[in-house]
Amino acid sequence: MTQAVFITLEGIEGVGKTSAVACVADWLRDHGRAVTVTREPGGTELGERVRALVLEHNDVPIAPLAELLLMFAARAQHLEQRIRPALARGESVVCDRFTDATYAYQGGGRGLPLRHIDSAAELVHGDLWPTLTVLLDASPEVGLSRARARSAADRFESEKLQFFERVRAAYLERASREARRFAVIDASQDMAKVHADIRALLAARLP
Amino acid sequence: MTQAVFITLEGIEGVGKTSAVACVADWLRDHGRAVTVTREPGGTELGERVRALVLEHNDVPIAPLAELLLMFAARAQHLEQRIRPALARGESVVCDRFTDATYAYQGGGRGLPLRHIDSAAELVHGDLWPTLTVLLDASPEVGLSRARARSAADRFESEKLQFFERVRAAYLERASREARRFAVIDASQDMAKVHADIRALLAARLP
Repeated sequence: MTQAVFITLEGIEGVGKTSAVACVADWLRDHGRAVTVTREPGGTELGERVRALVLEHNDVPIAPLAELLLMFAARAQHLEQRIRPALARGESVVCDRFTDATYAYQGGGRGLPLRHIDSAAELVHGDLWPTLTVLLDASPEVGLSRARARSAADRFESEKLQFFERVRAAYLERASREARRFAVIDASQDMAKVHADIRALLAARLP
Repeated sequence: MTQAVFITLEGIEGVGKTSAVACVADWLRDHGRAVTVTREPGGTELGERVRALVLEHNDVPIAPLAELLLMFAARAQHLEQRIRPALARGESVVCDRFTDATYAYQGGGRGLPLRHIDSAAELVHGDLWPTLTVLLDASPEVGLSRARARSAADRFESEKLQFFERVRAAYLERASREARRFAVIDASQDMAKVHADIRALLAARLP
């Protein structure tokens, strides 16, 4: 029996995470694995409520530290209710964003000290980190033009370009510091090439 | 000019915190202090939304650790938006519940390890602790019979008597360990006597 893996997809708005999640899940299923697909913030009823509060209600003031704790509250529920039970059943988990997004958005974007995020991450998931994290990397100009063509801007999408430059830089910094867990894919390529790169990556990196 | 003080009222449901908060605020104003009155969870728009999510939606599953982080998310916002600015303006703050409630409910009641609460408290407010914490102590039988006469049960009030025994014990444990900050008032007395005790306490303990 193949070992259950925990794969996360990361990147700024508009880099194609949703279709990449489906691509990863399809590949895993094609290779005989049972798969749970989920997303953050969200993935549980509590998480979806937190997601709505953080993303949609631009009029409710939320301090960066409060935003951090809301994200980790949703994550604690998600781990308890979905991620840990799926892994315990032997299912692989493919998740659209996880703690690396918190480092990128609340750390890089909002400027929260990384030690605060370290402390919350340690509290909420200890040593449970993804087996593999796929960072879909593209410039904010490319990502945001795609995201804005799609829907109205949420709390994050309303941020200025420099915000997303900081988020992207924080993602790339994490990818270079944890090179064994991360893989960086050029998301400015057309979708067929991005998905081909993802499939090649999975074939090379998974046990 | 008298120094701004930060006073919290603690205790289980039905011990008379709301009227005690008014009693403390009146005494402070009578003694020439400007006062901000607030409550947790709540006190800000985000806090009230979190309060509603945690207390009213009994149908949404919330893991103990997620509940802890929601409480601290609301608290981080409350500190940033209300408590710190009021203290910085020289106003005294009277707050219906604060971090001791988290130790009592999520620690004593839900059984979360106290080191998790220590870690979140350190992250959210570091060395900022109340000047004085008034613990209104009564048995759950007394408190809950009053609370249930008043309104429909929320997520906590739906818990069993043993839950509140644990909450009360955790409060008393904190009061005995931090005897210089805490004062315990017998809340099973009639309200006039409770308020007289509170006024005597304030006269004795405040600078």
